[in-house]
Amino acid sequence: MKSYRVEFLPFDLDVEAPAGATVLEAAKLAGLPLKAGCGGEGTCGDCVVRVVEGDYQKKASAALSESLVEQGYVLACRTEIQDDLTVLLPEFQELSIRRGAEARLLDEREISGFCEVEPPVRVLELEVPAPTLEDNFSDLKRLEREIMKQSGWTEVGCTYSALQQLPEAIRVDGGRVRVVIYKSGACMQTHPLTEDAVHVEDEAEAEGETRIVLQRQSRPVILDVLPQSSEFRLCGLACDIGTSTVAMHLVDMATGEILASASSLNQQVKCGEDIISRIHYARKPGRLIELHLLIVGTINHLIAEVTDAASVPESDIYYASFAGNTTMLHLFLNLEPRYIREEPYVPVVNQAPEVSAQDVGLDINLEGRVFFAPAVGSYVGGDITAGLLCTPMLREREGVSMFIDAGTNGELVVGNRDWLVTCACSAGPAFEGSGIKCGMPAAEGAIEKLAIREDGSCDYVTIGEGPPKGLCGSGLVDLLAELFVHGYIDRQGKFDPDKSRDMMVEEEGGRGFLVERASACFWGKDLVITETGIANLIRTKGAVFSACALLLKNVGLSWDEIEAFYVAGGFGRSLDIENSVRIGLLPDLDRGRFHYLGNSSLQGAYLVLLSDRNKRLVEDLARNMTYIELNTEPGYMNEYTGSLFLPHTDMRLFPSVERVRGRRQNA
Amino acid sequence: MKSYRVEFLPFDLDVEAPAGATVLEAAKLAGLPLKAGCGGEGTCGDCVVRVVEGDYQKKASAALSESLVEQGYVLACRTEIQDDLTVLLPEFQELSIRRGAEARLLDEREISGFCEVEPPVRVLELEVPAPTLEDNFSDLKRLEREIMKQSGWTEVGCTYSALQQLPEAIRVDGGRVRVVIYKSGACMQTHPLTEDAVHVEDEAEAEGETRIVLQRQSRPVILDVLPQSSEFRLCGLACDIGTSTVAMHLVDMATGEILASASSLNQQVKCGEDIISRIHYARKPGRLIELHLLIVGTINHLIAEVTDAASVPESDIYYASFAGNTTMLHLFLNLEPRYIREEPYVPVVNQAPEVSAQDVGLDINLEGRVFFAPAVGSYVGGDITAGLLCTPMLREREGVSMFIDAGTNGELVVGNRDWLVTCACSAGPAFEGSGIKCGMPAAEGAIEKLAIREDGSCDYVTIGEGPPKGLCGSGLVDLLAELFVHGYIDRQGKFDPDKSRDMMVEEEGGRGFLVERASACFWGKDLVITETGIANLIRTKGAVFSACALLLKNVGLSWDEIEAFYVAGGFGRSLDIENSVRIGLLPDLDRGRFHYLGNSSLQGAYLVLLSDRNKRLVEDLARNMTYIELNTEPGYMNEYTGSLFLPHTDMRLFPSVERVRGRRQNA
Repeated sequence: MKSYRVEFLPFDLDVEAPAGATVLEAAKLAGLPLKAGCGGEGTCGDCVVRVVEGDYQKKASAALSESLVEQGYVLACRTEIQDDLTVLLPEFQELSIRRGAEARLLDEREISGFCEVEPPVRVLELEVPAPTLEDNFSDLKRLEREIMKQSGWTEVGCTYSALQQLPEAIRVDGGRVRVVIYKSGACMQTHPLTEDAVHVEDEAEAEGETRIVLQRQSRPVILDVLPQSSEFRLCGLACDIGTSTVAMHLVDMATGEILASASSLNQQVKCGEDIISRIHYARKPGRLIELHLLIVGTINHLIAEVTDAASVPESDIYYASFAGNTTMLHLFLNLEPRYIREEPYVPVVNQAPEVSAQDVGLDINLEGRVFFAPAVGSYVGGDITAGLLCTPMLREREGVSMFIDAGTNGELVVGNRDWLVTCACSAGPAFEGSGIKCGMPAAEGAIEKLAIREDGSCDYVTIGEGPPKGLCGSGLVDLLAELFVHGYIDRQGKFDPDKSRDMMVEEEGGRGFLVERASACFWGKDLVITETGIANLIRTKGAVFSACALLLKNVGLSWDEIEAFYVAGGFGRSLDIENSVRIGLLPDLDRGRFHYLGNSSLQGAYLVLLSDRNKRLVEDLARNMTYIELNTEPGYMNEYTGSLFLPHTDMRLFPSVERVRGRRQNA
Repeated sequence: MKSYRVEFLPFDLDVEAPAGATVLEAAKLAGLPLKAGCGGEGTCGDCVVRVVEGDYQKKASAALSESLVEQGYVLACRTEIQDDLTVLLPEFQELSIRRGAEARLLDEREISGFCEVEPPVRVLELEVPAPTLEDNFSDLKRLEREIMKQSGWTEVGCTYSALQQLPEAIRVDGGRVRVVIYKSGACMQTHPLTEDAVHVEDEAEAEGETRIVLQRQSRPVILDVLPQSSEFRLCGLACDIGTSTVAMHLVDMATGEILASASSLNQQVKCGEDIISRIHYARKPGRLIELHLLIVGTINHLIAEVTDAASVPESDIYYASFAGNTTMLHLFLNLEPRYIREEPYVPVVNQAPEVSAQDVGLDINLEGRVFFAPAVGSYVGGDITAGLLCTPMLREREGVSMFIDAGTNGELVVGNRDWLVTCACSAGPAFEGSGIKCGMPAAEGAIEKLAIREDGSCDYVTIGEGPPKGLCGSGLVDLLAELFVHGYIDRQGKFDPDKSRDMMVEEEGGRGFLVERASACFWGKDLVITETGIANLIRTKGAVFSACALLLKNVGLSWDEIEAFYVAGGFGRSLDIENSVRIGLLPDLDRGRFHYLGNSSLQGAYLVLLSDRNKRLVEDLARNMTYIELNTEPGYMNEYTGSLFLPHTDMRLFPSVERVRGRRQNA
């Protein structure tokens, strides 16, 4: 029987599928979890895909609007394979690609990281004299001599790849070369070494502390040698590897300018939504490498997008700074993750050794150096150490602040310059728009702000201002708060039968509140939130809030004593603080204490990319934070179940919410 | 038309050849320079091969003895391909494989290198405690802690491969692991650093010099982590990459014991006999990588032999020390060699950066470290810096010695502890048994000692005591000296028609002196030396001697002022000094001044393998030797042509030879 090759984008996956099979069947063969609520009847419209190349036979189906059809979308379950096909799964596609500089949101006074462009990669432009019978030193020696002359260093190393380029590069432009050098601070030393070998840490010096903290500098290493006539722009990558989404900046390393940004779902989601299910997935033979290849593939896909958008060759990228949780670190480096999940929960490594791009298969310059922000422990990763750079917590000596990263895995940090305590909780990806039928990541078409009008219809703003595709985290927070405040749902998240009657619609996932009618929506389907979705949101906010409460109890502080809350996560561009308090995600305190940071992991990775001092800051941080395990804390279940109400079982904790709800319901 | 695959051993080469073609034709297709003096008529017997696997059709041929046929040998030109074949070319086969320890010929008092077993790779046996909820540091951190406890180091790095092994290795035997560490001295520093970071050079200290030479130690790096229950023996490789032959020791790194040795022709000889022709060959696209793969293939083939002989897995080899000339260094590392040959003759590199086995494709442990003895310049390589370790020259403060390495490329060094001057000459591979019809490397079946009896027949000793296959360098020196002293040839190397008449035979290469009759020889063919072969030997000895004379003139010394001559090369196990003087290879001085070292490059590589201090010694050497270019010296051609006589045009230089020859001819 004839068969065809079906390639699924953005994965590098193909399968052989028999002629006449549907694209949905092919996707299942490929192990892709393409949704199909109706079981392939062509009625639910879940399995929308776009055929990019190849011929196919469409079977009749009702579920797809004409405008989608015009844009090339089909239902996978109603599309028969009659040719080699290339099929794009929109769900996994890059979420956004932006070209050009974006405002650098970094203000020295508001963060702990250094706002300087002093990366460990740099370019030297040199003229290496041609050899003569008198000056017949080797190519490398003549190059080293010029480097030392210009830099004042007393030694320099050379990578094998650079050495192989050298004889050609040094002769093309009469010796005028551009040398890419990597030089980063290395281990901490408490011994007084000579000035030459060390670098005095600014902070320690400034404070006049008696303990002189010294930094031994690593040997500078030549990563590449290029003729000056070649086109060139020294670039770097900052990348947040989230459990659900991956986001990246391509950065000009001379100026710090962001040349392009992109994000997409982490392709690993096909193997499980959270880290626990991925670790479980990795247990079978061949699956750790599969997860490794999926995340590297996701990243390489984004690298192709950002380099294309900025018209920069991938080989101009010599340094990449990553941040992500400890499991992502392990999967990215193809390290056994299972012990993260088994008591006593130890990772293979918190601080990965520096690896080169070719070690991990990253599509940047072969000799590009890869840094991963160090983790504190199995459940507090480099996303947190990097994220803390984006808060002023590490500078503050008075008072105490709290950092909350409400990602798929939630992490909390409390403390100040002198002490930091951290813990983790399993929040779930609801606030990143995953795991909820009407949810989506903060990408084009996502409802990011929402209010319910008196007539029960919704007033909203979408990213890109087009027809809505779903709700991102900030929209979901608004929706939940509005449903609650207006009395459409009760404190347990159940619909009030009377109040909500007119706004309820039936759909395959059950009955739900209609956010927007099919005709106004991008996918041509009603946008609906069901009780299941609401329960999911409540569990997520409950996990975060109860973890915060427990952590405070643990360090002997009350909510009032926390001067500032820094909230990070994939909610979207902004987060309505009032609504966050109303649903009980954040405590009922003066709203001025809350600061929404957005993706602080990405911003932290960017800070680390720009300044070698920031790299050393996160290394220090990772060593010095105290990690506590919440699961083994007594009172954990009590706190958690108390938080599974809107806003909480204990309404005394949320006086302002009680007042508002009372007012609305009485109105 | 049907075709078959013919694989040629020991190369990793195969070709498709049409059914019915001969093995000789297939070899030509594969680019192998299989000799065929008679043009494929089956009469010369040059193209002897052994068919290891597959069916073939033998055509009648006269040239192969019955005993060879019994051993499976065939003539390639008379063997028709009727099947997939595996064919071994005996010429390229390993020359020798020896199992078991060989006496360590190193005496502290006779060499300059350190006779200690202190290599940069070492094994630590540790017990890493299992993690607990209280001690929940990462696997790497717990391992590092134990390493530091046992070693006293303040830091340790880890390779990516070792990290990937770690979680499994650390759990198999309840934490009992074996850690392979690499820690080598690095750059020189003239600043006083703290004791912790430095290592005071013994010598400088011992001499009480005011300049304190300090050595900054490199950071120790974990290359591998293995459970203690696994079979294990920390091994190293010492390898001489000669232009013509490659020789290797497999060494137990705990004791320094040589577990097995092997040598073979350098497979690159198929692309040219000397370095100049190989550099020329490398000019066309794809050929540099071909030469690179041929030398790596030759080495990997030998690694397979020695590890097999010693029953050691290749992955137990964590360190390899290479020595070879500068062109071999470039081809081994796949570096452009062309500028070695073009004025002003600069190499890409003299001291290669440390690379790992996976960088070059060496079949040892992936993370095995590879060191190549540094070169002085384009024509004085690491074989010389390593070889000098095997002489006492670097210790001697009084008097002056000379080191002569008469390889395919000849190199000379004159000086003592305080100064060393070096130069090179193109000698040719005659003394290694290449390029001469009756010549062969010093392997089983080679005549290594020879004397001509009064009746003109030869009295000889072969390696292995079996029937002779050819003559190695020491046998050729004896033969040339005996022919000359007995008057069979004149001072220009031409046969005396009267004297030699009875011993002359005709063969394809021309008329020649019969060394041994076909019936007594392994290959069933007469062993003959022709005038062409004699001329080749005379050119080679002339190149070496004239270079020595010029070098001495250059430094303003006479022969008499040289207290000791250290002669290295591939002559064989011993070299008859008297005969070397008689042919004018060595000067006519007190015979006690001459010391034959054999393969000093291999022995030097072995010394470097055993002791990190020897590695630093060769690095110092390479920096401090003065290189002079002979080709541009006035008087070069005069000296050379004067040396193209037996023993020399100027007989006053060789009074003892004149006396002996006179006596013999008068007798």
